[in-house]
Amino acid sequence: MTLADTRQSLSGLEFFQRLLRGEAPRPPMLELLDIRLLEVEAGRVVFGAQADPRFYNGMGVAHGGFAATLLDTALGCAINTMMPVGKRFTTLELKVNLTRPLTQEAGPLRCEATVVHVGGRTATSEGRIVDRNGKLYAHGTTTCIVVEPPRGNLEP
Amino acid sequence: MTLADTRQSLSGLEFFQRLLRGEAPRPPMLELLDIRLLEVEAGRVVFGAQADPRFYNGMGVAHGGFAATLLDTALGCAINTMMPVGKRFTTLELKVNLTRPLTQEAGPLRCEATVVHVGGRTATSEGRIVDRNGKLYAHGTTTCIVVEPPRGNLEP
Amino acid sequence: MTLADTRQSLSGLEFFQRLLRGEAPRPPMLELLDIRLLEVEAGRVVFGAQADPRFYNGMGVAHGGFAATLLDTALGCAINTMMPVGKRFTTLELKVNLTRPLTQEAGPLRCEATVVHVGGRTATSEGRIVDRNGKLYAHGTTTCIVVEPPRGNLEP
Amino acid sequence: MTLADTRQSLSGLEFFQRLLRGEAPRPPMLELLDIRLLEVEAGRVVFGAQADPRFYNGMGVAHGGFAATLLDTALGCAINTMMPVGKRFTTLELKVNLTRPLTQEAGPLRCEATVVHVGGRTATSEGRIVDRNGKLYAHGTTTCIVVEPPRGNLEP
Repeated sequence: MTLADTRQSLSGLEFFQRLLRGEAPRPPMLELLDIRLLEVEAGRVVFGAQADPRFYNGMGVAHGGFAATLLDTALGCAINTMMPVGKRFTTLELKVNLTRPLTQEAGPLRCEATVVHVGGRTATSEGRIVDRNGKLYAHGTTTCIVVEPPRGNLEP
Repeated sequence: MTLADTRQSLSGLEFFQRLLRGEAPRPPMLELLDIRLLEVEAGRVVFGAQADPRFYNGMGVAHGGFAATLLDTALGCAINTMMPVGKRFTTLELKVNLTRPLTQEAGPLRCEATVVHVGGRTATSEGRIVDRNGKLYAHGTTTCIVVEPPRGNLEP
Repeated sequence: MTLADTRQSLSGLEFFQRLLRGEAPRPPMLELLDIRLLEVEAGRVVFGAQADPRFYNGMGVAHGGFAATLLDTALGCAINTMMPVGKRFTTLELKVNLTRPLTQEAGPLRCEATVVHVGGRTATSEGRIVDRNGKLYAHGTTTCIVVEPPRGNLEP
Repeated sequence: MTLADTRQSLSGLEFFQRLLRGEAPRPPMLELLDIRLLEVEAGRVVFGAQADPRFYNGMGVAHGGFAATLLDTALGCAINTMMPVGKRFTTLELKVNLTRPLTQEAGPLRCEATVVHVGGRTATSEGRIVDRNGKLYAHGTTTCIVVEPPRGNLEP
């Protein structure tokens, strides 16, 4: 049974609560970048991570892709916490502002995302990456669209 | 001597040409996601990568952060190929559109980025991720700003 | 019969060709900002405008909203030139880069937009605002989504 | 004495407070779209407007450029309320999400923007357009950059 299958039988919130309790494996990309779910409620999630040197670009700071991955994770999950069983949103576009250089000296990072708009077909959310003192390193927004089930799913 | 030091004594184009010839180590994040420089000229670069399962999200497709990292790499490098010795741009913001689900079935991917605007303080570029048949999976734009040298660098 | 009604019985390309020939009235906002359709073909449009002082902000240059309106017009139309009778896309999000201050001294402006991705439910396009010498003032991208007809339309 | 000259001798906050009290003329584009400053404090502004039919596109709803102009106004002003005498920021890029069709039936609109990041050279802000019931029609973010004074200004 894959992660995707599990999600089919749970609401988004239930799915992420399982992930939070460690009852579901982390998706591979979150494993690779060591991104951990810290908090989840309807419309709001917090993920944690750290800007380790293995995420650096050639200039000795975290690659923009690190912040983008962390934000994309949180922004999409915040939206999916609002979804009932069998309904799921996927990312159409992602916009990220990098406001400060990010290195391991920043220590543990929190990425909090909250829902801005949830409609029948599209949804948007916003999020920020801060350190333990609330210092801002990056922020972003996303637009998601509902995933239409393959036709076969509509038949028994 | 770090990657950043090497860049200080070379133009952006010379720096990326060295990377292309394998004479400079890949930045850590490109190593981690196995992103390789394939082509470079003034104002244009092509990077290659593959959407391996280790880059997947919980839904069995590549995490949006994979495309974002690949695009951010190419978009920033395209701008820096235009920079003389000692001048370097860093990413202020990144916007990514995900137009199709991306899995390893897509095979080898090319991410080509080209410069749109280069001014004294800011620059923009645009890029696309396609498979070997030119099928589009994602595209994006970035805004970069010149990095001001730390004051100490101005003294001998 | 409203503009919207006319569009219902024509493909997007036919609709914009009528607008080009002056056989359909300009939408009110294009009238207000004197934005004119100059060229149209499948997947590509060009609109013309001028940065008159009545579009200035408090700093004596064209308001960012002027470039945003011109780009939004062209980006959305480029996508709708690809649509058959009865199918229409609307803007979900718009991203605009302002690369140079814009004043009436720039003279006649051209805003060319081309389609990047057209799928069943979403589409993206990109565009640029240039003067007669090709000097770039702004560029942008958009994400559009198909407009679902009101339920009543499905009944006779 | 132009609006721009007045701003040179006032902090951003003082300038917008004068605009609020009607002691300074509205910039032309705000006059054209009848956008009014309603509230201003350090880091936060509210502008009011209405989606009149003269701002409609060809489909009988407000043109995306209307929301973009309203948001660009508020987003830039929120940042400039933080600026001392002689320091001013200008828009580098603007991102707008249109979450609902907007018509005059929505009545009086409020566009509130708040600062997210203010650095020495760049700043970002976020804003929303809502009706009197708080219903959301659009939201956006901007990246601004400090305007460097022309060289001549540094001499007496």
